[in-house]
Amino acid sequence: MKKGCKFGTHRVIEPKGTLPQPAWKIDNNMDIFDNEILINVETLNIDSASFTQIKEQADGDVEKIKEIMLDIVEKRGKHHNPVTGSGGMLIGTIEKIGPDLEGNIDLKVGDKIATLVSLSLTPLRIDNIKEVRKDIDQVDIDGKAILFESGIYAVIPDDIPQNLALSVLDVAGAPAQTAKLVKPGDTVLVIGGTGKSGMLCLYEAKKRAGVTGKVICLGHSEKSLDRVRKVGLADEYVVADATKPVEVMERVSEVTDGEMADITINCVNVPNTEMSSILATKDDGLIYFFSMATSFTKAALGAEGVGMDTTMIIGNGYTKGHAQIALEIMRESKELRELYEELYA
Amino acid sequence: MKKGCKFGTHRVIEPKGTLPQPAWKIDNNMDIFDNEILINVETLNIDSASFTQIKEQADGDVEKIKEIMLDIVEKRGKHHNPVTGSGGMLIGTIEKIGPDLEGNIDLKVGDKIATLVSLSLTPLRIDNIKEVRKDIDQVDIDGKAILFESGIYAVIPDDIPQNLALSVLDVAGAPAQTAKLVKPGDTVLVIGGTGKSGMLCLYEAKKRAGVTGKVICLGHSEKSLDRVRKVGLADEYVVADATKPVEVMERVSEVTDGEMADITINCVNVPNTEMSSILATKDDGLIYFFSMATSFTKAALGAEGVGMDTTMIIGNGYTKGHAQIALEIMRESKELRELYEELYA
Repeated sequence: MKKGCKFGTHRVIEPKGTLPQPAWKIDNNMDIFDNEILINVETLNIDSASFTQIKEQADGDVEKIKEIMLDIVEKRGKHHNPVTGSGGMLIGTIEKIGPDLEGNIDLKVGDKIATLVSLSLTPLRIDNIKEVRKDIDQVDIDGKAILFESGIYAVIPDDIPQNLALSVLDVAGAPAQTAKLVKPGDTVLVIGGTGKSGMLCLYEAKKRAGVTGKVICLGHSEKSLDRVRKVGLADEYVVADATKPVEVMERVSEVTDGEMADITINCVNVPNTEMSSILATKDDGLIYFFSMATSFTKAALGAEGVGMDTTMIIGNGYTKGHAQIALEIMRESKELRELYEELYA
Repeated sequence: MKKGCKFGTHRVIEPKGTLPQPAWKIDNNMDIFDNEILINVETLNIDSASFTQIKEQADGDVEKIKEIMLDIVEKRGKHHNPVTGSGGMLIGTIEKIGPDLEGNIDLKVGDKIATLVSLSLTPLRIDNIKEVRKDIDQVDIDGKAILFESGIYAVIPDDIPQNLALSVLDVAGAPAQTAKLVKPGDTVLVIGGTGKSGMLCLYEAKKRAGVTGKVICLGHSEKSLDRVRKVGLADEYVVADATKPVEVMERVSEVTDGEMADITINCVNVPNTEMSSILATKDDGLIYFFSMATSFTKAALGAEGVGMDTTMIIGNGYTKGHAQIALEIMRESKELRELYEELYA
């Protein structure tokens, strides 16, 4: 065996000199290096934007979904959707730990973990696709994957069922970033607040903004808003099409007396919602784009185009303690946990 | 005549309900609405990423460049490059001011202005392309353009020549954002520091970081670094290929004793530099992506992939006072002004 780069550059096939994530193709040979970890994969949790695209391309047909997924991994050595550029995460058990890492990390063979780095950079081999759970973006497989030395992971906790933990961990960055950004008294708008990451963001936003703040949930239908309303995640509920900036601006203006949001968190996995986020936010406000469907140029040029001095942040899927923060929500809120189990686990 | 939307939605042809920037096609009929301004265009300053792409597509041939530009405007009603998604800006004289605006703004017919909103949302008609200045991304035309009520602009100052002012205003957001971000003592890395926006960022960074800070200029060649070195814009000068993350990380590590940058400003208009920016920055540092070639997903997944808790900001071309801040640099630094005139005016 031999020592690899901690970031995994030794597995990049093309183009050379890049890291595994931006690389087009990486080596998914499952003989591990001295500082790698081999995982026996059970379940892939495909990124929501990616899985939506795959389902559309397959016209919802399960066999076609399987074909597309196998083809991606065959071509790239990783489940890195070439259309959306996004990945997802996986759950599995530790099969082997490289000698350089053994004893230096809190893992042992047999532990069940979720990888908290994207599938878009994780060497993956799929031997067989066993089940596609279309409604929750999860796919059970026989296969192996590799975690690099710099890769982050979470051991699946005993008190939270595996599928629930996986669903929560998949979007852990969003609520953790929300927790760090929101201050007491803030008006916070969550676009896509009825979705998988949006609901967790609402929960953290309400906890941090407190009684002097205002948390607004924007969703695309009354039905989805009703679910969130029952759990009491927000102070205001607004139906609007997030791709219609003028409509969103008017709705948010109504519930904020024209003041607009201090912080807008965009969790909606459809394209063309940048401008809605900008127009719904105060001129000196902050927008946190967690959606992988966000276009950098549309956001940058959109704000400039309407002369808004808004701070716009690229959602970083990782922030310190994100797994703990997100999983803790499932322990704190029985109602949200039940809803999450119903929808995503 | 009639009243239009202040953001220009009345000119969107497709898709309906969007704003002019994300729209595929807008109406470039030059009969103005009551709250629009008609501009007699002299010069287009094409966004650097866009013009680089057009030059490559045309193999550097001027007549082909003209064809591509005319084709973009013919198809979209605006100079919105469909490949890069970016625009640029223009200079011209005020030909007509809608009655709703006349007297309420600091402009009169005959004033020479630069529009500070992107060409990617500005209704434009090109009657004739007179001259293509390939090296400075400027194109002289006969044509007209329209400024919406929300559009921002700067009157060309008397003490700065027009072409110089246009070059500076084109990238005004970057130095102004730098001025707002950098604090005394910061280690600041400017990737693409030898370029049009990079040099202005270096100047502001050095002014704000002060004697206790360290400003690092990263460029792709010794020749370009030498130009900047002569003007004394940085404390350290580093040659590296910005698309090679490991190389960039090692060079920046050398000049910071392994500490890396507190703030990294990315001004390099080539794709695949997100990871270099991330690896060159402290785990709790901040990256400001001004480059229009930035990929949202590459940045988001890249940071997550290496477990870095970095704050990443989408460069907003507009911030309050950006035109004044950028133009003032030309008054403050005789040396930088001379270099700027040599390269870009």
